[in-house]
Amino acid sequence: MNAGQIFVWEMLGTAVLVLLGTAVVANHVLRKTLGTGNGFLFINIGWAFAVFTGASIANPTGAHINPAVTFGLAVAGQLDWAEVPIYMAGQLVGGVLGAVLCWLTYKLQFDDFPEPGGTLGIFSTGPQIRNLPWNLVTEIIGTFVLVAWILLSPGAEAGPNGIPVFGNAALGYAGVAFVVLVIGTSLGGPTGYAINPARDLGPRIAYAFILPIRGKGSADWGYSWVPVVGPLVGGGLAALLYLVLPTT
Amino acid sequence: MNAGQIFVWEMLGTAVLVLLGTAVVANHVLRKTLGTGNGFLFINIGWAFAVFTGASIANPTGAHINPAVTFGLAVAGQLDWAEVPIYMAGQLVGGVLGAVLCWLTYKLQFDDFPEPGGTLGIFSTGPQIRNLPWNLVTEIIGTFVLVAWILLSPGAEAGPNGIPVFGNAALGYAGVAFVVLVIGTSLGGPTGYAINPARDLGPRIAYAFILPIRGKGSADWGYSWVPVVGPLVGGGLAALLYLVLPTT
Amino acid sequence: MNAGQIFVWEMLGTAVLVLLGTAVVANHVLRKTLGTGNGFLFINIGWAFAVFTGASIANPTGAHINPAVTFGLAVAGQLDWAEVPIYMAGQLVGGVLGAVLCWLTYKLQFDDFPEPGGTLGIFSTGPQIRNLPWNLVTEIIGTFVLVAWILLSPGAEAGPNGIPVFGNAALGYAGVAFVVLVIGTSLGGPTGYAINPARDLGPRIAYAFILPIRGKGSADWGYSWVPVVGPLVGGGLAALLYLVLPTT
Amino acid sequence: MNAGQIFVWEMLGTAVLVLLGTAVVANHVLRKTLGTGNGFLFINIGWAFAVFTGASIANPTGAHINPAVTFGLAVAGQLDWAEVPIYMAGQLVGGVLGAVLCWLTYKLQFDDFPEPGGTLGIFSTGPQIRNLPWNLVTEIIGTFVLVAWILLSPGAEAGPNGIPVFGNAALGYAGVAFVVLVIGTSLGGPTGYAINPARDLGPRIAYAFILPIRGKGSADWGYSWVPVVGPLVGGGLAALLYLVLPTT
Repeated sequence: MNAGQIFVWEMLGTAVLVLLGTAVVANHVLRKTLGTGNGFLFINIGWAFAVFTGASIANPTGAHINPAVTFGLAVAGQLDWAEVPIYMAGQLVGGVLGAVLCWLTYKLQFDDFPEPGGTLGIFSTGPQIRNLPWNLVTEIIGTFVLVAWILLSPGAEAGPNGIPVFGNAALGYAGVAFVVLVIGTSLGGPTGYAINPARDLGPRIAYAFILPIRGKGSADWGYSWVPVVGPLVGGGLAALLYLVLPTT
Repeated sequence: MNAGQIFVWEMLGTAVLVLLGTAVVANHVLRKTLGTGNGFLFINIGWAFAVFTGASIANPTGAHINPAVTFGLAVAGQLDWAEVPIYMAGQLVGGVLGAVLCWLTYKLQFDDFPEPGGTLGIFSTGPQIRNLPWNLVTEIIGTFVLVAWILLSPGAEAGPNGIPVFGNAALGYAGVAFVVLVIGTSLGGPTGYAINPARDLGPRIAYAFILPIRGKGSADWGYSWVPVVGPLVGGGLAALLYLVLPTT
Repeated sequence: MNAGQIFVWEMLGTAVLVLLGTAVVANHVLRKTLGTGNGFLFINIGWAFAVFTGASIANPTGAHINPAVTFGLAVAGQLDWAEVPIYMAGQLVGGVLGAVLCWLTYKLQFDDFPEPGGTLGIFSTGPQIRNLPWNLVTEIIGTFVLVAWILLSPGAEAGPNGIPVFGNAALGYAGVAFVVLVIGTSLGGPTGYAINPARDLGPRIAYAFILPIRGKGSADWGYSWVPVVGPLVGGGLAALLYLVLPTT
Repeated sequence: MNAGQIFVWEMLGTAVLVLLGTAVVANHVLRKTLGTGNGFLFINIGWAFAVFTGASIANPTGAHINPAVTFGLAVAGQLDWAEVPIYMAGQLVGGVLGAVLCWLTYKLQFDDFPEPGGTLGIFSTGPQIRNLPWNLVTEIIGTFVLVAWILLSPGAEAGPNGIPVFGNAALGYAGVAFVVLVIGTSLGGPTGYAINPARDLGPRIAYAFILPIRGKGSADWGYSWVPVVGPLVGGGLAALLYLVLPTT
């Protein structure tokens, strides 16, 4: 697959992921929506199946749609380092595009919202208690679980008589959705589980420079490096673990 | 398959879809039900697995049960245009039939409901903030995601040693249910995610002309074209995207 | 398989179904439980995966665990009528046994419950608005959907190149769980979706004659025939539909 | 597989299980989290997919991650008794490790929590009504269902023409997650469904001896044997049932 194709598929998959993920938060946060105030489980379910949908669409490129996954696979020796920047560029552009689509979907609700200064949280994550080193630890652990699962989850295998005995490969992209669901419910409490630099930085760029939300607030650039660095570190650590584990 | 068979299977699948989908809203809206006031996630889950059940039943015809899917597949070159009106006729009749079955299921609760003028929302969608062009945008984006996923989601493929490595084909009709779940949680906030002209117009016809609900309200024909045109446009755009994407 | 084996497997599967299903209601209704007051979606999810678990266990006999399924399969010509009473006997005994196990699990909470007269609803269904003919209609429609799905849902098929293209067979018993989930959210509002005579009559017998709940209320025998007759009629109608549908 | 490999994989899988499971409770119990007060269904979903994720990772050793499963498989004759202590040691160490990771994830929230004496419930289970023999019954029944499902759930089978007709094997580790979900909603009300000695004892050890939570409460050693003995008895009884069931 050539660089242009990688860019297009990763961009498209990440755009769908970020559209659906940011939009479930918009549905919860904004007023005069059917999902207003529906809470964290509602948001967790939305993000989980946002991953399912976006990953399905980016299937031709291996469905990374996340620079931490791309980085982890490269560290684990399963991706050519030369392709890494192409993947990441597609993912970041997709993140920006997804945020714009979310804003278009909820345009009337954004116009109507009485507290536009508090809308950053629809697009990008932030800590419930601000302490950057510990916030980083939380993002590292969350992404570690995601990338460790991706590297270690069993695929299809042949059983007795040649009949396949299936591992999670038989779940298609529902498997990774279930993992993101539980990372959300369990590890998402302190920082909102970015666990994906493109999912956080792309919409932050859109919020700061593109979206015409009247009275919008700060993009909180002081925090913005945490949901970029944390996921990359977590993904890299999972890949290192994968490399040292005893093979069967 | 002949025209009569297409009509019957699509009618049956859409009737089950609309029965289960409108009934979860009836359960939430009406009083003296076990699900009264259970909220939007409850409704999202009901509609998602309503699609699962209806699509399973319409499997012989490819499980469209949605004119936007039929139109998108025709634009994408995967369906003979001559069959399009047959599919759509079956879907629309099924939508009417499903609404009647919903009313039969909740007959006692409809009779008991103190605000019968507000029961249109059980059957057909409406906007939370009324602005038809922007409501149309929301319906276009929602249906675009649905039909893009249907066209792009990976099927079964052979892996090394002839053992199948499964894509989402291994999920049966659960895959499309997961996509409808997230379209609901994420893109359903502003307009109630019709994303299916038969799901909206069929029950609206039943509400206006068939169901004997005493004191029932307007069928809101002024809005009724939005959940018809929006999904068709969204499905068509997804098909155009599909046609121009780089093949691997 | 001989009659004793059919009886044992159906009894065991139905016992697990009824244990898990009645226990989620106990968790919701009783006090000093972790799930008290968790609502109808919580109950729907519990019953759905109770079906998953019980059906998995009764796999050797085809996982009926429901006399309406057994009757529907016999009408559809897929089961020998001579086996019908054996299946149903196992199911009914399993329903009684499951209710006893539920009571053992929540024994301390039953002893502590201040309104023991209202505990029938943990074990057996009842109408929110009492009108037996219309309650019957609701149960017929709910069971019709269940049995129609069982008869019509696509199985495994061979695709191009011999690679299987999977229908819902690839979901194992999760498919029927998803259908029961949506029947609950959508059609369960008026009568509590018995949709299974053994699930309702077995626990009712246990409640009336076996369980030592101090101050327990009436077993409401006047209603008890509705969740028996309604599901059998619904299952039979689904089988008749199956027999007249156009084959492809 | 040698003893070291068994130890490592079981430790790793159980650590991920316990991390994700205890963390969803932390998210619910602690303050200044996004999931605070989200309730029991939220916790049930978290634990269910914690099992999915942990079991996927421990796939090379058969994904026990639970001494009750290990014991049940040994009683059923499917595991060499000599390997039992190795499995259990890995599981227990993993349980301790997972609790430490949970504490690291929520470190800021633990420091901020005004009632540190009540944090044991994040890590280990306890009864809603204290009566050790009946609490034991509840844990026995819950674990019986889990291990019975594991032993009896159908695997992959060949159907007509050699095309596989799938049982729950096609669900990968989602099947066991669905079972743990319903055990939680249905049987978890009285005692918090330990159903796994390592999941309860490991975090209890961490809480008592390792975690630096200022003002932390008692580890309630008087109850600690119930969620160890109950699951082992339940798993053993399920294995005995399995041995006496009629084969088809």
